[in-house]
Amino acid sequence: MSRAYNFCAGPATLPEAVLKQAREEMLDWRGSGMSVMEMSHRSDEFVEIADTAERDFRELAGVSDDYAVLFMQGGASSQFATIPLNLLGDKTQADYVNTGIWSKKAIAEAARYAEVNVVATGADANFTSIPEQAGWKTNPNAAYLHYTPNETIGGVEFDFVPESGDVPLVADFSSSILSSPLDVSKFGLIYAGAQKNIGPSGLVVVIIRKDLLGKARDITPTMMNYQVIAENGSMYNTPATYSWYLAGLVFKWVKAQGGVEAMGQLNDRKARKLYDFIDGCDFYANPIDARFRSRMNVPFTLADDALNGDFLKGADQRGLLNLKGHRSVGGMRASIYNAMPEAGVDALIEYMAAFAEERG
Amino acid sequence: MSRAYNFCAGPATLPEAVLKQAREEMLDWRGSGMSVMEMSHRSDEFVEIADTAERDFRELAGVSDDYAVLFMQGGASSQFATIPLNLLGDKTQADYVNTGIWSKKAIAEAARYAEVNVVATGADANFTSIPEQAGWKTNPNAAYLHYTPNETIGGVEFDFVPESGDVPLVADFSSSILSSPLDVSKFGLIYAGAQKNIGPSGLVVVIIRKDLLGKARDITPTMMNYQVIAENGSMYNTPATYSWYLAGLVFKWVKAQGGVEAMGQLNDRKARKLYDFIDGCDFYANPIDARFRSRMNVPFTLADDALNGDFLKGADQRGLLNLKGHRSVGGMRASIYNAMPEAGVDALIEYMAAFAEERG
Repeated sequence: MSRAYNFCAGPATLPEAVLKQAREEMLDWRGSGMSVMEMSHRSDEFVEIADTAERDFRELAGVSDDYAVLFMQGGASSQFATIPLNLLGDKTQADYVNTGIWSKKAIAEAARYAEVNVVATGADANFTSIPEQAGWKTNPNAAYLHYTPNETIGGVEFDFVPESGDVPLVADFSSSILSSPLDVSKFGLIYAGAQKNIGPSGLVVVIIRKDLLGKARDITPTMMNYQVIAENGSMYNTPATYSWYLAGLVFKWVKAQGGVEAMGQLNDRKARKLYDFIDGCDFYANPIDARFRSRMNVPFTLADDALNGDFLKGADQRGLLNLKGHRSVGGMRASIYNAMPEAGVDALIEYMAAFAEERG
Repeated sequence: MSRAYNFCAGPATLPEAVLKQAREEMLDWRGSGMSVMEMSHRSDEFVEIADTAERDFRELAGVSDDYAVLFMQGGASSQFATIPLNLLGDKTQADYVNTGIWSKKAIAEAARYAEVNVVATGADANFTSIPEQAGWKTNPNAAYLHYTPNETIGGVEFDFVPESGDVPLVADFSSSILSSPLDVSKFGLIYAGAQKNIGPSGLVVVIIRKDLLGKARDITPTMMNYQVIAENGSMYNTPATYSWYLAGLVFKWVKAQGGVEAMGQLNDRKARKLYDFIDGCDFYANPIDARFRSRMNVPFTLADDALNGDFLKGADQRGLLNLKGHRSVGGMRASIYNAMPEAGVDALIEYMAAFAEERG
């Protein structure tokens, strides 16, 4: 088929313009005689690609010189260990907020290295809401406070940045980085697996306040030591060069769309359209507390689960792909990251309306 | 320029046919409506890509069912920690052979987790040779014996597989995997960063004998636990999907060339041509003991270092790229992995001869 609308939660759809440029440059990057993936990471060409990507990312995300930006490997899941290994320092405790499946994974890994204090949990509401911060039991001796701003599977998203006082705030922005403006100065560390809003999998971007560098425990693998990676410009070993290059193309594309302000407006509009349609149609339902509905991942159910197979089949035929919900949640899920055009959401709504009309 | 001959040590040149296929499939993989880098790693399409790549790799490298093949992230440098963390078990000691810069890096990282016994070193010969095994001081209580079959920087390569008795043999094949036939059954663990003979950086392939799984120390990050990665088919988290796909294309290409036997013959011929030329021309020199000269990385010096700049400039003009030697060695280095065609070596020799004639 021609290009479909791909609602996959990640790896996720990329801007067509980015893929076209990558295709164009595949065999010969700007007259260099080679593909980017064949370049020495220490060559002038690749260093320019890498530096440009970092500069554009800093500009887009508003990252000051007080922070290092690292391009690491191993995905967000590696960061679940890297964070306690690096940030505990001489402390033993860390605070975590549990708002769903990705929070739980972060907590489970951290608990192998730290005394984890779960300061708040969405479990009582079956993770359909975010606990108000007023009730959180934070610990002033915690090395950091970790939360997951957007839960990709549950489809629940914070509409506020937690206050953490002097305790560094750490956030897994894998599924919402660059999707709207963000005040980085409120954070000690932000990390994001690339495969949703940044580029291909195999890359994870870390923003770390420089005063948090240099505290790694002695058991930390060198490749997980933030200070080592920072001191070597993310080239302590050969980085994931092609993923870094593609991330750079995505950053240029986001800038060309008007930056994170414009992306935020577009993402708000896309999400509102879809939620409004779901709320206005008895045939579909979304279980999330309206205030905390994710702008990136929209889970929804049909009035009759027995129709799920037909719904997915019809969607596939119309080039609306990967709408099946996560196995732990069931139903459907539409991931509508930056690269999903508004026309894709419109096409989805049109199909959902027709399906409800016919089968509802 | 058009496609050059790229002698970079890694990331390194890839087969042009592979890049062309990747270009062709960039926006729409086989009618799926999406790029491989946009596919869910759990989709039928990507699982087929991943399984095919593993099957082809097993066939090429001759890997039996007694071994797991893992597609991990973080490069060989991450393996330097992953290996002791997983293989020490209830032992405390590990044996290492030191044949150059990459051996030393592996040793330094292992020494953070194990009592490292350096059983042999090429230091006395300034790493221009490999110590005969008869003189190695191996330790029967070592958890494993580690060596580096080919030293990418020094250009020295084992022409034998060490005997390790009941001690598992571990080898960093980053720069020589799939370059000639190999008896995997002699090894406990083989690892190889992808960016020389397999594909783009950001992927490391591990072959591990299954009885060595399940011994990870409790401080091992989950993403570094071989058993977890093996049990999850290298999809405990989102793997580096696009790199995995490209590796698969390279494996198909190696098969089409006649497999590792044919690659081995070609690589022998390429290396012999180049060394024969160097040995026959007073203007160039290679310092390595002839028996242990690398078939993959050929360092050489000019009679007068003051001519290095002119040599490199003239090479660039002829599309012979990245011949500058590693900063720790100086001089020149031609890396001639599987994907470097014989015509590239011929072109290099022709240029070297002309330069020596004119300036020697």
